[in-house]
Amino acid sequence: MAERHMPPPLRFLLAARRSELHGLEALARSCDLVVRIGALAHALQKERGYSNLYLCSADARLQPALAGLTGDAEAVEAEVRQLLDGLAADPGNARARLLNGIAYSLFRLDELAGLRRLVRDRRVPAEDADARFTQAVGSLLAIVFETADAALDPGVARNLVALLNFMQGKELSGQERACGVMGYTAGCFSDAQKARMLGLAASQERSFGIFVQYAEPDALQCWERIQQQGGQVRRMRDVAQRTSAGQPVDAGLAELWFDLYTARIDAMRGLESLLAQALAQRCAQRIAEARQELDDRRLLLSRYADHASGRAPSMVYGVHGRVVDAPPPDGVGGELERPILDMMREQALRMQQADDALAAARGALDETRRIDRAKRILIGRYGLTEQAAHERLQRAAMDGGLSLADVARQIVEQAGDG
Amino acid sequence: MAERHMPPPLRFLLAARRSELHGLEALARSCDLVVRIGALAHALQKERGYSNLYLCSADARLQPALAGLTGDAEAVEAEVRQLLDGLAADPGNARARLLNGIAYSLFRLDELAGLRRLVRDRRVPAEDADARFTQAVGSLLAIVFETADAALDPGVARNLVALLNFMQGKELSGQERACGVMGYTAGCFSDAQKARMLGLAASQERSFGIFVQYAEPDALQCWERIQQQGGQVRRMRDVAQRTSAGQPVDAGLAELWFDLYTARIDAMRGLESLLAQALAQRCAQRIAEARQELDDRRLLLSRYADHASGRAPSMVYGVHGRVVDAPPPDGVGGELERPILDMMREQALRMQQADDALAAARGALDETRRIDRAKRILIGRYGLTEQAAHERLQRAAMDGGLSLADVARQIVEQAGDG
Repeated sequence: MAERHMPPPLRFLLAARRSELHGLEALARSCDLVVRIGALAHALQKERGYSNLYLCSADARLQPALAGLTGDAEAVEAEVRQLLDGLAADPGNARARLLNGIAYSLFRLDELAGLRRLVRDRRVPAEDADARFTQAVGSLLAIVFETADAALDPGVARNLVALLNFMQGKELSGQERACGVMGYTAGCFSDAQKARMLGLAASQERSFGIFVQYAEPDALQCWERIQQQGGQVRRMRDVAQRTSAGQPVDAGLAELWFDLYTARIDAMRGLESLLAQALAQRCAQRIAEARQELDDRRLLLSRYADHASGRAPSMVYGVHGRVVDAPPPDGVGGELERPILDMMREQALRMQQADDALAAARGALDETRRIDRAKRILIGRYGLTEQAAHERLQRAAMDGGLSLADVARQIVEQAGDG
Repeated sequence: MAERHMPPPLRFLLAARRSELHGLEALARSCDLVVRIGALAHALQKERGYSNLYLCSADARLQPALAGLTGDAEAVEAEVRQLLDGLAADPGNARARLLNGIAYSLFRLDELAGLRRLVRDRRVPAEDADARFTQAVGSLLAIVFETADAALDPGVARNLVALLNFMQGKELSGQERACGVMGYTAGCFSDAQKARMLGLAASQERSFGIFVQYAEPDALQCWERIQQQGGQVRRMRDVAQRTSAGQPVDAGLAELWFDLYTARIDAMRGLESLLAQALAQRCAQRIAEARQELDDRRLLLSRYADHASGRAPSMVYGVHGRVVDAPPPDGVGGELERPILDMMREQALRMQQADDALAAARGALDETRRIDRAKRILIGRYGLTEQAAHERLQRAAMDGGLSLADVARQIVEQAGDG
């Protein structure tokens, strides 16, 4: 029986399944974007760290390696731009927030060409170059976070939450690497730099903590190994806190710090790829399942409809799509309708369960967003830098014996009232 | 400057605005569906009430009026089906949950033809007919609630929350009218019927309470008037609670109750139309604003781009869309980029504020949904009827000194763990 001849309830039931499938396919494309953007963020993180080293030291021999990292980043950027061009050509399904995020990110990426020349000629302070790269990476991660809202499937959402929080933690590690390079090159860390180092370590703990909550066993094992190898980085963190203008350390430690930390971040990149693969596989698997279910259902429905219209022409979904005979007391048509009704209930229940699981998984992302939003409110209200806003949040949390998320919630709620 | 020649960030910025506009247009179509479905629910509510009266009394003179109400409902149903057919033809933007809800609702509406014959021939108990109509109306309201998820604009979301909760309250009133007809025709209310009447009154209070929170002044004034005229219905509620098998009341009170309550529900329908109009107007207004903003922005952007490429051909967004000259220290291009950056920030902030407002407005709907979900869990676990599940929820709330929403949350959370 052709679908266009099906009674309306059955047609809508199939349309619902197809819509679910399309959602999964769109999500798979988003996952692809997430993976490429992760690669670009990684390349920029490396370039940022090495730019810092290059700007802080006077060693011209670092220049070719820096140029190589720039070339790597530009190559990955070209891939990302190609993917985005496809999205711009057919933005039908893209949401306003995602498109806006992409616009902002492209703007930031466009700025990097000029910045790179300034870095090469050592005509920009390390702090400023660092901030520019951080803005660009931040804008990329913001795109990635937007894709999470499109996740329909609870399993996929869990994978995505693990990946996004891991990416966030990795970016915070990259910022710590850059900050450490500046301090160690100077021979000591200022109070502001020490506070920043502590703040970055605490934020990493938060992001990786959420990652651990949502990650799968093999990813967790890999993370264990990375943590076990982090002893030297942790010791150098402690050393950084003990430095002072009166007791400077050897500036050569900067390169050691950079190399140790880079090995750590490269290992993180390996795990990030593992997470991205798991996500892509989960998407592909769910799409295959949804296609299979759709086929099964279509078969079942048309058999049912043929049966109903053939064996009992005057029953439900008869020629005029209406009951002609008097139905049994329990309603209409009796036994034959049950499978359809059960299917509808089962589908509704499944979507409800997916919602519940998604709500839990998204809670973690919402918390991260709320902290960002609270920071933006503080920046707008008191003209603080992002760093200062973060420190104020942390101080308020510590003073009040609250979590960062709790303080952020209070700030956002108060701002909402005003 | 043609849009395809614009630099990528500007193109994505415009695409983001267009996506917002499309979202509003889709919402306006949903509003249309909500209005028509509201009319169908009203017609079925009336037919349900009169069917009850017809089945409980032996008076054959009621038959023509009942046939008239059936005809009214069928006429509105034909309109709704036409609107849905359009949606089935182009389900591209419809979400799985909405399509599934429509499938279920059409299934329930198809059943009514058979039920109506049973009613006409008095071959079905009043309780069963009542339950069938209630299922059909419930399935329609479920569709309406699904559309709320598509609301992007905070103002529109507030109007929608007010309307949906009012529709829910009105449906509970319709159920109370039907229940009252049964009790008054019998001359007294059973303990179960008394409990049901109390439960329905309490649930109405909840729904109308949320409506009052989100309604606009003119709607509130209208609601005040309806409440002031509700004295007789409230007195008859009290009478119902005092009836008993030993002290029956005159069965003629059934018709009085039906007429009084019908006048009340018809007045509610007037307010419902007012709310629907306000919603449609709000949508139309936001669409006009979004179009205007899009035009303004496009003009501004192309002027900017012309300007940048004309006066300073080697600046940002030059021939190759990249900076060619060395930029000033604050980044690239200087003053000219500010408007673009400000626009992006402003747009991101606006979307964030819309999100916050939406989250608050949706909280009320989510609560309603959570109570429904908790009921379904109890029905599945203990094989309860919907009514019994509702009563169990209410008892648990009363015993624990909690709100219905709190108890529902606990039940849903426990079920999620299992």
